[in-house]
Amino acid sequence: MRDTYIIGVGMTKFGRAGDWTLIDVLEYAAARALEDAGLGENVESVFVANMGAGILNRLSGLGSAMVDRLCLFPAAAETVENGPASGGSAVKIGAMAVGSGAVDTALVVGGEVMRAVTGWEATDFVATLTHPEAEYIYGVTLPALAGMFARLYMDKYGVTPEHLAMVAIKNHENAMKNPDAHIQQTVTMEGLLHRPEAVVNNPYVAEPLRMFDCCPVSDGAAAVVLCSREVAERSGKPLVRIAGFGQATDTHAVHEREDPTELAAVRTAAERAFAMAGRKPADVDVAELHDAFTILEIAQSEEAGFFERGTGHIALEKGETRPGGRLPINVSGGLKARGHPVGATGVAQVVEIARHLRGEAGERQIEKPRVGFTCNFGGFGNNVVCFVLEREG
Amino acid sequence: MRDTYIIGVGMTKFGRAGDWTLIDVLEYAAARALEDAGLGENVESVFVANMGAGILNRLSGLGSAMVDRLCLFPAAAETVENGPASGGSAVKIGAMAVGSGAVDTALVVGGEVMRAVTGWEATDFVATLTHPEAEYIYGVTLPALAGMFARLYMDKYGVTPEHLAMVAIKNHENAMKNPDAHIQQTVTMEGLLHRPEAVVNNPYVAEPLRMFDCCPVSDGAAAVVLCSREVAERSGKPLVRIAGFGQATDTHAVHEREDPTELAAVRTAAERAFAMAGRKPADVDVAELHDAFTILEIAQSEEAGFFERGTGHIALEKGETRPGGRLPINVSGGLKARGHPVGATGVAQVVEIARHLRGEAGERQIEKPRVGFTCNFGGFGNNVVCFVLEREG
Repeated sequence: MRDTYIIGVGMTKFGRAGDWTLIDVLEYAAARALEDAGLGENVESVFVANMGAGILNRLSGLGSAMVDRLCLFPAAAETVENGPASGGSAVKIGAMAVGSGAVDTALVVGGEVMRAVTGWEATDFVATLTHPEAEYIYGVTLPALAGMFARLYMDKYGVTPEHLAMVAIKNHENAMKNPDAHIQQTVTMEGLLHRPEAVVNNPYVAEPLRMFDCCPVSDGAAAVVLCSREVAERSGKPLVRIAGFGQATDTHAVHEREDPTELAAVRTAAERAFAMAGRKPADVDVAELHDAFTILEIAQSEEAGFFERGTGHIALEKGETRPGGRLPINVSGGLKARGHPVGATGVAQVVEIARHLRGEAGERQIEKPRVGFTCNFGGFGNNVVCFVLEREG
Repeated sequence: MRDTYIIGVGMTKFGRAGDWTLIDVLEYAAARALEDAGLGENVESVFVANMGAGILNRLSGLGSAMVDRLCLFPAAAETVENGPASGGSAVKIGAMAVGSGAVDTALVVGGEVMRAVTGWEATDFVATLTHPEAEYIYGVTLPALAGMFARLYMDKYGVTPEHLAMVAIKNHENAMKNPDAHIQQTVTMEGLLHRPEAVVNNPYVAEPLRMFDCCPVSDGAAAVVLCSREVAERSGKPLVRIAGFGQATDTHAVHEREDPTELAAVRTAAERAFAMAGRKPADVDVAELHDAFTILEIAQSEEAGFFERGTGHIALEKGETRPGGRLPINVSGGLKARGHPVGATGVAQVVEIARHLRGEAGERQIEKPRVGFTCNFGGFGNNVVCFVLEREG
């Protein structure tokens, strides 16, 4: 398989898209990435990552729409859906398209406009990817699954509500330096948990998870331009390579897992990505994990191999996952504060890492990283896509 | 790029799925293809082709659901959407996955359960892939676009309503020998056009297209198992190779095309597929074209290079496209009579050609074909995927 490089990145600010349609936000991010890549209209293949076009926007054929908006005829185009890991899946498929030699250039753009749904409707939309007969019909939601997971995990490893809050505090703080983040507001341990008004300002969503343990419902899009080594060298852009990718699935229904506190698909996907890259977790300088719920950042940081199982919250407490720490996690603000337009997230993770590897992450730049890692988590851990990205030269 | 082979095929009967869910029909076709391939659960990647899960079935994450149903953990999985060309796109992506060397085996399964919508609702669903601002909001539908296309085409090339009826008569006759076809009923020129009751039995849908010029609304699924040459040789199955694929896009809105009677994306996609295969149209022994409307079989047979432009209807009239003719087209019955479960169609075309190349097409078997061709037509010709398949050995 040929190597694949990232020569263009772009995204919208995450948050509220106003009167922009889904196609508008996708176009904006894609146009920024194409401009960055400097390829003009010379793109051979387009992959759009999206989960909700049908349910939320009553749209189909986003791939064809993107080609039309961006005048990329006769480029190939399709939409890739894998729930909240749609973005990771689309980047993977783009890397295989370039890797196979079928194309030399590919645009991958992920986006979501979720304003059609608010509150329980947003939760119900995301729940369409739970098991239809074993979970959905009984009213299972993603926050409910995450709540049950958190309770078991906390009991097993001594994780406290304060640890969960530390994830939120860190990621909200990180987002203050990310102009594309949805939420730009710092939070404190006092405010989240200890002041009397916390009961009202940070209510339980699914005990033990409170509102500030859950990511917001966001609109937005993110895009990358992928290419062969030859095209990357010609572009004059820093050489950021997709060194490895890995994907794995787990049982659709969470209750069928032998130990529901394990995220086997994260472990396998990460192992596969590291094996393909010829790297190990200790080589990673910066990581973006899928903190749709605060507990997931802690659990994924262990399953991906960065910390021993049951010690992720200790590393967090020690500040090892803050910028400047041993392994900065979610410098972008993560899903928690950068936001989570479902189809965009996996692509946005790659955009963030590519920016750090290029030294273009602005105020939040991590010092000279060489290797980055992303984990995009679909369903409740039933379909996970990981990447290892490297800066060359 | 490595060669990709087809070692397993399977499908449901197209028609009405009764109380089977979308996941049920996908599972059935996939299980048949896996059984045929004899790989057991050793599949590394799953691609599900589907257009309407969100709109029609309120489902997401079909890829993960398939892995779960078929116990293929920890296989990678995603859904691929490209309107009515979703099936072609998913087979193409599967071929790139194997071709890249990322995986040695991939399952591609396409399906649709459309019973939630009937009549105008089905038409409205399919219209979600027309241009949202330039077509859909003005009430444009696919039959309306096909009607306008047919009128222009018929005037330009002297195609008559009888020629359109000949496509329907041929394909309905072909479907009589296909136990998986949705419609098993022969039709006659008299009955379709000349008897007084034709006005009632075969009414205009979008003049000059009548009901029997349009494909039915079907449920169903089709699947193929793709693999590397090494796995194919080990399987002991006949060596059916994806010799070439080609894809191309055209303007989203049909009225933006310089000559709306041309299907430029079909021409380009076919040229690309033939170039990759090192073949020419005259090498093809059997073809499946996307006759969602009868006029499209005629137009595609020209754009794909089988007949000079404006002469497809003459070849049809002479019987050249019937079984036993120079180039049998839609021996399966085509979309017209085998049916058109949108996400399944592109995969079903590949299944049909693979069966002929293997000599396993039963009563409708074409004599010793070596090279087959498929054309899967998305939108109104805005995203087209073609394949050239070859029998080796």
